[in-house]
Amino acid sequence: MLKDEVIAYKKERIIDAAGQLFFEKGYALTTLDDIAAALSVRKPFLYQFFAGKLELLSEVCGKTTAYASSIAQSALDGAGSPTVRLSRMVRALALEIIKGRIALAVCFREEKHLPPEGLRRLQDDRRRFIRALRLLLEEGRGKGEFSFPDANATAQAITGMTTWIYIWYRPDGAMQPDELAAETAAMALRLVGAAG
Amino acid sequence: MLKDEVIAYKKERIIDAAGQLFFEKGYALTTLDDIAAALSVRKPFLYQFFAGKLELLSEVCGKTTAYASSIAQSALDGAGSPTVRLSRMVRALALEIIKGRIALAVCFREEKHLPPEGLRRLQDDRRRFIRALRLLLEEGRGKGEFSFPDANATAQAITGMTTWIYIWYRPDGAMQPDELAAETAAMALRLVGAAG
Repeated sequence: MLKDEVIAYKKERIIDAAGQLFFEKGYALTTLDDIAAALSVRKPFLYQFFAGKLELLSEVCGKTTAYASSIAQSALDGAGSPTVRLSRMVRALALEIIKGRIALAVCFREEKHLPPEGLRRLQDDRRRFIRALRLLLEEGRGKGEFSFPDANATAQAITGMTTWIYIWYRPDGAMQPDELAAETAAMALRLVGAAG
Repeated sequence: MLKDEVIAYKKERIIDAAGQLFFEKGYALTTLDDIAAALSVRKPFLYQFFAGKLELLSEVCGKTTAYASSIAQSALDGAGSPTVRLSRMVRALALEIIKGRIALAVCFREEKHLPPEGLRRLQDDRRRFIRALRLLLEEGRGKGEFSFPDANATAQAITGMTTWIYIWYRPDGAMQPDELAAETAAMALRLVGAAG
């Protein structure tokens, strides 16, 4: 329904504005007034959607990790060979990390402010992500498509090299998001010893 | 001289204690009194070595990155084939990241507090590190030992998968530091397409 779409859109814009301000000023120094001002709305508008600043931090932090966890699970359950599914997953993850790099930077800096249940949800999503990726790698090794010694270290390496994009990617850099995502997927395949 | 060694040792212990407290309580909430108490010394003792909390944060942040930059440079200038030098470098870097994981976590969280010159030094070290690693990869490709499409993306991927160890390494985990470092070096060789 259109009404739900509008609500979702408003929430998304508020979360993005909050993330941008947390990134520039730090979580502690950002106020709800700053967020309202950045969107040219009044504070009560924000309270229609969020209980306060901490809920906004949870949303900023949770987005990319929840998405990562869901695409890893889809890659595990989906159709196609392990090689195809790993490549597709790393590509999608890289694109999401490029898009969500501000939120990720905020999250790595500020997650210690999260309330216990917010931190637990984040850690659960990370664990689900790594578990699904590890199972996909083991499936590919079992089918003879991949060849690597340690599934956990390899899953962590793929996660690390892909996540690290949030640190160094620049919109004015040499590679476009699509190219970088494709290249990252190709590196993941080399890492697992997949026949190119 | 013994006297210099003792001074270096004391500084090292102060930096480690500061890093541990910044990690546990956050930089903003840690006081010099806390650091003194953790070491069972009085605050004036700390002032013999450091001007204040901010200098301690610079030290905590700078250590691993300065070391990374120096081993990448040694790998570039050193003896042996590019394959041998890359493997040795990634191994040394992984061991340093395992050892310095608390300081790295603090640095990623708190570097926004650094004074401009501290931040600049950190960024210079990071740039030097990536540059030396990229040149080593290009040398290896030029000699036909490595095969990969993009030197910068590959250098960043190796950096990312190795740095990421600070996030997931646990002393009570399945792999010992030496094993994990060797495995990370082996993954870096797979990533650059080196003949194993």
